[in-house]
Amino acid sequence: MLSSTDLVQAVTADLGKIRETAPLVLSLTNSVVQPLTANLLLAIGAVPAMLNDAEEAVDMLRSGTGALLVNLGTVTREQGAAMQTAVREANRLNIPWVLDPVAVGALSLRTRLAGQLKEQSPRIIRGNASEIMALAGYSSVTKGPESTSSSADALHAARELALHTGAAVLVTGRTDYSTDGRQVTATENGHAMMSRVTGVGCSMGALSAACAAVSPTPLQAAVSTAVLMGIAGEMAFEQSPSPGSFAVSLLDSLYALSPEDVVRRARFLSL
Amino acid sequence: MLSSTDLVQAVTADLGKIRETAPLVLSLTNSVVQPLTANLLLAIGAVPAMLNDAEEAVDMLRSGTGALLVNLGTVTREQGAAMQTAVREANRLNIPWVLDPVAVGALSLRTRLAGQLKEQSPRIIRGNASEIMALAGYSSVTKGPESTSSSADALHAARELALHTGAAVLVTGRTDYSTDGRQVTATENGHAMMSRVTGVGCSMGALSAACAAVSPTPLQAAVSTAVLMGIAGEMAFEQSPSPGSFAVSLLDSLYALSPEDVVRRARFLSL
Amino acid sequence: MLSSTDLVQAVTADLGKIRETAPLVLSLTNSVVQPLTANLLLAIGAVPAMLNDAEEAVDMLRSGTGALLVNLGTVTREQGAAMQTAVREANRLNIPWVLDPVAVGALSLRTRLAGQLKEQSPRIIRGNASEIMALAGYSSVTKGPESTSSSADALHAARELALHTGAAVLVTGRTDYSTDGRQVTATENGHAMMSRVTGVGCSMGALSAACAAVSPTPLQAAVSTAVLMGIAGEMAFEQSPSPGSFAVSLLDSLYALSPEDVVRRARFLSL
Repeated sequence: MLSSTDLVQAVTADLGKIRETAPLVLSLTNSVVQPLTANLLLAIGAVPAMLNDAEEAVDMLRSGTGALLVNLGTVTREQGAAMQTAVREANRLNIPWVLDPVAVGALSLRTRLAGQLKEQSPRIIRGNASEIMALAGYSSVTKGPESTSSSADALHAARELALHTGAAVLVTGRTDYSTDGRQVTATENGHAMMSRVTGVGCSMGALSAACAAVSPTPLQAAVSTAVLMGIAGEMAFEQSPSPGSFAVSLLDSLYALSPEDVVRRARFLSL
Repeated sequence: MLSSTDLVQAVTADLGKIRETAPLVLSLTNSVVQPLTANLLLAIGAVPAMLNDAEEAVDMLRSGTGALLVNLGTVTREQGAAMQTAVREANRLNIPWVLDPVAVGALSLRTRLAGQLKEQSPRIIRGNASEIMALAGYSSVTKGPESTSSSADALHAARELALHTGAAVLVTGRTDYSTDGRQVTATENGHAMMSRVTGVGCSMGALSAACAAVSPTPLQAAVSTAVLMGIAGEMAFEQSPSPGSFAVSLLDSLYALSPEDVVRRARFLSL
Repeated sequence: MLSSTDLVQAVTADLGKIRETAPLVLSLTNSVVQPLTANLLLAIGAVPAMLNDAEEAVDMLRSGTGALLVNLGTVTREQGAAMQTAVREANRLNIPWVLDPVAVGALSLRTRLAGQLKEQSPRIIRGNASEIMALAGYSSVTKGPESTSSSADALHAARELALHTGAAVLVTGRTDYSTDGRQVTATENGHAMMSRVTGVGCSMGALSAACAAVSPTPLQAAVSTAVLMGIAGEMAFEQSPSPGSFAVSLLDSLYALSPEDVVRRARFLSL
């Protein structure tokens, strides 16, 4: 288990490597959050790619893609098939991929699809408490894309899910939990305003893919995601405490985020 | 017929109920305006949900959805079929639904579809003058999504459409008209800059769905929509008189909008 | 060959005509950039229309459309077929159309499609260096949607492509090159921050369509596009040097852009 100081160093190292290597992140994601996701990846220093065609997804994976994001937010049968194709190719090429199981549980198509995808070796699974509980097989009440459970409620499910799938699981909420099933890192960066902007959660999935492209382990990538996005959210709220301008400042903050900001602001909890 | 004072109280009551109950609004809407629509619903205090699959739309309607928006802006045959399924289920569950017939008249697929949907008991129909006239069966010249008629021109058509469909009709323009076919409420909040940001009109459709989830009548929901969005537009323009920053301030204004703002700014016309 | 003074006058004339005539630009474009594209067209004074259905594209072209944009960024087989239909109708009606071959080269579906579309008389082809080289038949290394070649590298390919297709070719980069195969105009407006916001390049394709609707020649429309967007980018960076707020200021700057700004800032290179 890393100390807080080691964790902070690992987060700043991931940030530095994203900016230095500009990993290409192929995001098969929902149409609502495509603009924010692409802009957020650009702001942190990664290169976003988005497309719909399965054959082209394979082409892109073979052309220097650093990580793949699969987000089920507005999935259709056709997009689901493209995701399956992309995941197989990513695994064949040993490209890390992230599963973001938006609103699984109540919605049938994505729940079936997520149940299949979780068996195909995602490196990271990112969700709120309700989504992680549903994906782990526990029932949970959701209200649309919003979670009604706390992330602490989901920690047991997250550990089971991590052990079952081999993925690092990132449960986002007031406290963010990152676990590979054995170790758990709890972090408390972020601001409630992040839930008043559409796509911030989904963009954490994309950021975790960028981190997975450069980080030594999926667990570290999950922790870096929670800390970097959380700190950017805090900085954004200090600049802009209303949701429209907050979303703008969130991008500005990710662009400006320095290693010193990480050292000063990262908050790890003892468990 | 309510007095202006009663109307203002009813608008502030709707605003309070949206913030208190956070209704889930399922928006089957066009891809151009999805981000603004979702952010606007979050800013006012509602919870947005968006998806593409017909089966999932039914699942979502059965999971606590407060209102459904059907917006035809980028409709395809496949999305049209999902909309038909969703509307049937909403009616079965007595969930209010809103029809936003973007650019009907010149465009064949959506004109046929809107003609069918208007017969299926929408609670609110929201459109600009050209769209309402076309949907009511009058010819009207449109220029893409922009209206070339004034909302006053469309008032007769709006009353007929309301009587025929049983919906409250909201005609948006410099003056906004809300009618159930018998009563008409004319309001004059808003700013011309709202037409320089894509999706503001479509977001009024989404806001009217949020209002329909909490308001005592569809007519009141239409009036509340016109007043709340119009006032937010005025406040936004005072902060930010250029279109990029205006769009940001529009979200900030909806978030900040107080009952006092409504009392001070609501402008009802005598007809 | 026009002098710099003549070129500046021609650019300001195009800007004036867009604002005066508000051309309707039908954009068949990728889902990531739809909101920015629509907002950018509105900011400069054009009217955006977006839709997915092939039959409706034909309807719209017959209803006063000034120019058509075909952008391959998230193309599917179905959207590709709609694009083919729209291009045929645009040519039949003598409506200028723009091809934006996003990320052609590595990705198979769009590369095949772009190869067909370039033979169908686009008035303007807009791309970065890698895209123009790939479309002209030269191999080039791309990293997702980003170009790894400089626009100067692509100038030879651009001239060949222009002569072969009859289109004006606009190669965007640090220096922007506009050519009809015989004349070349090089312009140096813009700012590197434009590449940190998703959709700025794609929005140049849309702006070039708006210019093509009003400009005396496709070549002039390409030059006007490069200069107007570049100047707006410079003005935006002076206001907002971080990417989130830069994107907002870019729209504000296009809205505010005056003929005097063009005269003062336009930078033409001698070749």
